[in-house]
Amino acid sequence: MIIVYSPDHALQEGRSELHDGKIVPCFESPRRAALVLAGIEAAGLGPVEAPQRFGLDPVRRVHAADYVAFLETAWGAWVAEHGDHDALPFTWLAPDMRRVLPDHIDGKLGYYAFDAGTPITAGTFRAAGVAADVALTGAHRLADGAPCAFALGRPPGHHAGRAHYGGYCFFNNAAIAAQALRDRGAARVAVLDVDYHHGNGTQEIFYDRGDVLFVSLHADPKQEYPYFLGFADETGSGAGEGATANYPLPFGTGWDTYAEALDHALGRIAAFGAEAVVVSLGVDAYKGDPISRFRLDTPDFAALGRRLAGLRRPTLLVMEGGYAVEAIGLNVVAVLRGFLDAA
Amino acid sequence: MIIVYSPDHALQEGRSELHDGKIVPCFESPRRAALVLAGIEAAGLGPVEAPQRFGLDPVRRVHAADYVAFLETAWGAWVAEHGDHDALPFTWLAPDMRRVLPDHIDGKLGYYAFDAGTPITAGTFRAAGVAADVALTGAHRLADGAPCAFALGRPPGHHAGRAHYGGYCFFNNAAIAAQALRDRGAARVAVLDVDYHHGNGTQEIFYDRGDVLFVSLHADPKQEYPYFLGFADETGSGAGEGATANYPLPFGTGWDTYAEALDHALGRIAAFGAEAVVVSLGVDAYKGDPISRFRLDTPDFAALGRRLAGLRRPTLLVMEGGYAVEAIGLNVVAVLRGFLDAA
Ligand SMILES: [Zn+2]
Ligand SMILES: [Zn+2]
Repeated sequence: MIIVYSPDHALQEGRSELHDGKIVPCFESPRRAALVLAGIEAAGLGPVEAPQRFGLDPVRRVHAADYVAFLETAWGAWVAEHGDHDALPFTWLAPDMRRVLPDHIDGKLGYYAFDAGTPITAGTFRAAGVAADVALTGAHRLADGAPCAFALGRPPGHHAGRAHYGGYCFFNNAAIAAQALRDRGAARVAVLDVDYHHGNGTQEIFYDRGDVLFVSLHADPKQEYPYFLGFADETGSGAGEGATANYPLPFGTGWDTYAEALDHALGRIAAFGAEAVVVSLGVDAYKGDPISRFRLDTPDFAALGRRLAGLRRPTLLVMEGGYAVEAIGLNVVAVLRGFLDAA
Repeated sequence: MIIVYSPDHALQEGRSELHDGKIVPCFESPRRAALVLAGIEAAGLGPVEAPQRFGLDPVRRVHAADYVAFLETAWGAWVAEHGDHDALPFTWLAPDMRRVLPDHIDGKLGYYAFDAGTPITAGTFRAAGVAADVALTGAHRLADGAPCAFALGRPPGHHAGRAHYGGYCFFNNAAIAAQALRDRGAARVAVLDVDYHHGNGTQEIFYDRGDVLFVSLHADPKQEYPYFLGFADETGSGAGEGATANYPLPFGTGWDTYAEALDHALGRIAAFGAEAVVVSLGVDAYKGDPISRFRLDTPDFAALGRRLAGLRRPTLLVMEGGYAVEAIGLNVVAVLRGFLDAA
């Protein structure tokens, strides 16, 4: 399987996130991608390829231009105001307030962010651009005929909306890749999100579109981050009506329950007639994940990979979450091996 | 001047707020009210009275019942989940998300809060209730015929909306008092907010009502917290059209500019025919305030007090912000003395 990887993901190395009322070291760290790469190399998967550069045009196909411009300038504005430490928002736009973009960096952060766990650092914008390039490279390899590829980038992307960041995500790599597949000629593309958390950004981006199906399995948003999206009654709007499907699952979900929902989700993708599939591959449904509460084990990830292959469609796997770093390599390799075994 | 005060404000003693990307000690501290009381006693103002108890019914006249219930239970839910340290939200409801109340405390915090600078502690709910009682006691003294009173409570209130907390505020003491004055028979009540920050909560509470005029002088929300409300073009809606007036002022504003806006604001209150006036009295427009950028000096606060007395209406002053603690007593006493000298 083609693995797309760049060491430049390490340009995003946040030091601080607000978690449980405290500033703690970031769960989303460069070590995550390094350990996945090590696992892949140890397993003899590959080849590992460097990403091509695509610039920001394909990013702006799914993100608002003002949002992209904000991310480009945020660090400089933050440092000028506060100094050389991670930028976190401390206030935000509540309902009944006005959606007016402030001039001050603190207000801008609150306008575009939806959490205080996603630091902007000196390297964030470049790293996010590289992560988009990694996903885009995979998408173009699929469009060129490859049956599958794994985009091993970070920061992750599925929480990033059209003009919002949060959940360690800035550019929505999976959405950017799905759009690129559409732009390269696939009439219908499906995004399947198996990260433990709802892919609220991806859903928002494609919610009113009928050409991209979004299907997500995740912890119940009544109970779990990101909370305010991902309910079963969200099915799309306008031309997108019926092209969103959410499977919120309870804390403690293990493989049996998960697999049942997964089979249903895969049935939706097949029925949709997707010509290509983008998988938002988080492995934080793992039983040992420090911030998650599902109970999948490593062999379950292999079974997940086999089922994904069963769709028999060009498939781009895009790295999302997974914070049990000691197991992240094993779990990702399990998915990839399962996929290849069944392909 | 009647001073209403209870030492129970000290039940709110936050340890942590997110500020400039770091967790820092809370600017809004019990010392603030203690120093104001000391200043009042040293100046021989008074008498100092304890508040009566009014319960939560008058609070629910301006706050949503579900919000009050949340504040009552939030600390217990937080401790059960995270332990005995200050509760801060880390994620929130961004535009395009759904206004669905989560079951989990972290989601609830994000649903009701609009910043990560306002810790909920073991004593928050009781302290907020006492602060409301302090303001209500002052309102009833006015309704009983007193020409003026000063409600020296904390936590402050003017950022608290119908169902939102933030800016160190939980119950909107000034709004609760204004409503009580209405309920005691004043046909028209004005709230004048001279805190450095926009009184976004008060504005939201009365925005569609014609019986309570809200007038605020504050730092331009394009530049300053709370950012997303307080613009000059916000004038009220429905029956409240014309009953909101905002005077956003630039960083660096000194007394000359301030006084001009103040005179205009006072003209609005007189023209409105207010039968009682509630002043949201923050003294963070002070030149030495650590988180503000206006340049009022202590004698300017005396001039402010004189102008307030010039309205010649029953006036309840309600303590809001002011974080230059070494000067807070002097500045508040200056307002009160100015008021009394001109009354
Ligand atoms: Zn996740
Ligand atoms: Zn203030």
